[in-house]
Amino acid sequence: MQRIHYTPYLDKIQTTEQAALLINNNDVLGVSGFTKAGDSKAVLPMVAERALYEGLKVTVLSGASLGYDTDANLARNGALVKRMPFQADPTLRTAINKHEVLYVDQHLGQTADMLQKIDTFKIDVAIVEAVSVTAEGFIVPTTSVGNSPIFLEKADKIIIEINTSFPESFLGLHDIKVLKKQPHRGIIPILKSDTRIGDPFIRIDPSKVVAIVYTEKPDSPAVISDPDEKTKAISNHILDFLGKEVDEGRLTESLLPLQAGIGKTANAILSGFTKSRFKNLTMYSEVLQDSTFDLFDAGKLEFASASSITVTKKCADNIFKDFEKYKSKLVLRPQNISNAAEVISRLGIIGINTAIEFDIYGNVNSTHITGTKMMNGIGGSGDFARNGYLSIFACPSTSKGGSISHIVPMVSHTDHTEHDVDVLVTEQGLADVRGLAPVERARLIINNCVHPDYRAQLLAYFDKAYSLGGQTPHILKEAFSWHTQLKTQGTMHMNDYSSCDV
Amino acid sequence: MQRIHYTPYLDKIQTTEQAALLINNNDVLGVSGFTKAGDSKAVLPMVAERALYEGLKVTVLSGASLGYDTDANLARNGALVKRMPFQADPTLRTAINKHEVLYVDQHLGQTADMLQKIDTFKIDVAIVEAVSVTAEGFIVPTTSVGNSPIFLEKADKIIIEINTSFPESFLGLHDIKVLKKQPHRGIIPILKSDTRIGDPFIRIDPSKVVAIVYTEKPDSPAVISDPDEKTKAISNHILDFLGKEVDEGRLTESLLPLQAGIGKTANAILSGFTKSRFKNLTMYSEVLQDSTFDLFDAGKLEFASASSITVTKKCADNIFKDFEKYKSKLVLRPQNISNAAEVISRLGIIGINTAIEFDIYGNVNSTHITGTKMMNGIGGSGDFARNGYLSIFACPSTSKGGSISHIVPMVSHTDHTEHDVDVLVTEQGLADVRGLAPVERARLIINNCVHPDYRAQLLAYFDKAYSLGGQTPHILKEAFSWHTQLKTQGTMHMNDYSSCDV
Repeated sequence: MQRIHYTPYLDKIQTTEQAALLINNNDVLGVSGFTKAGDSKAVLPMVAERALYEGLKVTVLSGASLGYDTDANLARNGALVKRMPFQADPTLRTAINKHEVLYVDQHLGQTADMLQKIDTFKIDVAIVEAVSVTAEGFIVPTTSVGNSPIFLEKADKIIIEINTSFPESFLGLHDIKVLKKQPHRGIIPILKSDTRIGDPFIRIDPSKVVAIVYTEKPDSPAVISDPDEKTKAISNHILDFLGKEVDEGRLTESLLPLQAGIGKTANAILSGFTKSRFKNLTMYSEVLQDSTFDLFDAGKLEFASASSITVTKKCADNIFKDFEKYKSKLVLRPQNISNAAEVISRLGIIGINTAIEFDIYGNVNSTHITGTKMMNGIGGSGDFARNGYLSIFACPSTSKGGSISHIVPMVSHTDHTEHDVDVLVTEQGLADVRGLAPVERARLIINNCVHPDYRAQLLAYFDKAYSLGGQTPHILKEAFSWHTQLKTQGTMHMNDYSSCDV
Repeated sequence: MQRIHYTPYLDKIQTTEQAALLINNNDVLGVSGFTKAGDSKAVLPMVAERALYEGLKVTVLSGASLGYDTDANLARNGALVKRMPFQADPTLRTAINKHEVLYVDQHLGQTADMLQKIDTFKIDVAIVEAVSVTAEGFIVPTTSVGNSPIFLEKADKIIIEINTSFPESFLGLHDIKVLKKQPHRGIIPILKSDTRIGDPFIRIDPSKVVAIVYTEKPDSPAVISDPDEKTKAISNHILDFLGKEVDEGRLTESLLPLQAGIGKTANAILSGFTKSRFKNLTMYSEVLQDSTFDLFDAGKLEFASASSITVTKKCADNIFKDFEKYKSKLVLRPQNISNAAEVISRLGIIGINTAIEFDIYGNVNSTHITGTKMMNGIGGSGDFARNGYLSIFACPSTSKGGSISHIVPMVSHTDHTEHDVDVLVTEQGLADVRGLAPVERARLIINNCVHPDYRAQLLAYFDKAYSLGGQTPHILKEAFSWHTQLKTQGTMHMNDYSSCDV
């Protein structure tokens, strides 16, 4: 059979319906898929169907978010006991915030390690998408690697989804190594973005394979709106800042390997590099969006390492039809290597991630709306912010017609502490807070990043708190007053903020 | 001259007074010293004197905290413009919280990297304590390495303090390597606690040495009270937990390399290992306290790596008179290697640190009293918690006669986020929150760690917040009500907490 180069697997070929029946109630599933790319497009959606008709319950561990409506249907049909380490689906998000699904929001680089440390998540079934199976029965992944290697190692049973929408020439794109548990971890000998340390396939025990199904459904396309004035301004501030670092001799024009989070802002920031002075760039990131291929086409980017490729339909059509042109400049790694503290600190990554809100002292909230409701999850932002060379967080200064300021007195949830944040940027400007004490940071952030409509209001909070003393001046009674007023009055803007009692 | 094995230095010998005059107003000083050990005991105290009489102002970067009253006198005499990356002195703390001194509270592993990245802190003078100078003019440090290698590399001028209270046989105790700036960092090839990768001395440019002074003042002794019932109980909970990890096959009886923070609780926890089932232990830590030597003497510990040795007078008298007995089992490293993300993640450190407070979701405050006033600083706790194998945080459940609960609805300052905390422990018990969603963590923490006097009160907060939904249930208006009530009524205990309005 086409794409299965290991004959003993031929009698494992089943329909999606048959394969999905191999999953038992309360199973823990380890599934491929990272920011929509390379996810299960047949069996896992069928698990959602079985939940609807039979009340099947499962725990789902993935690489990151899944494509199409898979997470939505799993949530809507009550299939999920627990979900980790990331999601980005509105229906699932609602179910999580209603306590219908337990959600563990985890650093994307740490899930594989966790599976080696605790027994809570014994993987019953791994469901992994592949472009092909090698002559040894090993798996060649599709557009993402994610946590698949560890899931396949830990799983009792393996279901493979051969996806014929991707070319078999994907073989050679991936670099797979399963890190050993400490104290046997050893060195991860990656010295540059393009260092390869493993195999182009995932080694598995063929006797664990219980089913192989065929699909031809492409990845859910990324939908990215064009850069707007705000994201362009953010991008320009970052480019200016990095240019100054070069002018003053702290970086070269090839900078250091770039990481960028997912979404419109991150994509726009990265796209800004196409027309910049920088050259011979490299990426050591977790997900590659359209902007990566724009940078290749512009001759700016030399090499890109990540754990997944998540692009729009137009970009996918382009790059997959002419894949050889890009393949030698790409590598996809397991996410505990793309996001490894060891490699990120050694290579000195410049990490650019987006914030939901940040505060006057540089603490960042990446996950929770008004401190309680989960948006998506921390993803890999912490892996890069914690251990990289430069940790940049960006967001617009305001949104919802100015009723929300994304710079607040105190973040309502902390994902990245003041200790891990170097640069903050909005369309208003950029604050480089490296080496600054909290009170210095506050003045710089208020001056450079805050929208003019909120500047006096935020300065009033800071001045009042400052007058009371303390390394990090705050008035605990008022620290969340902006958030609570937003809830009651629909805006963070205050008419009279100068007379509040202390 | 004794201990100076490089003759060109002999005309650099000066009095402390002369040497201190080489420091100019507004200089940035990079000084040796880490948790009191190996600090400048002559020239820096004289800088404090000059501040009193001449109004001299300096910025002081150290390894960590300094000994005797140096930080206190610098602060009291108005000498300090800025201080980083750590302090632990009551007078300096007060000055910081009064905004008399700018304080940058930084991960101890990251200061050296910061000096390579930004020019804000051009080191004018490095002041470093030494047991001797080699024939090449290189420096053999005393009881700490700290940030001295990077200070010496970056400094325009170097002042050496030869301290004759330490034996010259310290030569061989240290392992020094200056890491290159990215992208030239390369691998840090430490595979075990005892791996040596550098020199037993700090290489310097001898032409930068402007003065050498002699001292014979020993390190300020650590003062550690004996373990009390609470710290003993905390230690036992941790030992029981680790024992269970061994019983269930997740760790061996030699565990993984241990790190422990400084202070009474950490020392008591580590001392508990002397009478435990564990054996062939190793440490990869930042500071070694008395407990390390208790563990050596009990035959439990094979090797200890750190950046400093900070012990009581009794312990110091013991180990330095018989130093050869311990020397082969010890190594002192620069703090950006003792605390390196790369090594900590590779070796799989078990990090045990103390908290000021933690919340029901596992966020930890290590630094700020009621969210505003600095206590000491984050130190190295984040370096280990972020990248280690197991991140344990401990504190008593209550203090001040029960008026303060150290487990609160929401921490008033976040140093370690929910993503980086694995185990929380008080004398009441231990909560292993690995793999748990926030609402699961809350129930476990309330049940296991909270003092009975606060359990119902905390559960009432959680239940009420839970009823409103959200991944991390909170009521922002009440999240800090415990802290604000403590300020107004002297206790966090509430008589009526069930009827609060939502």
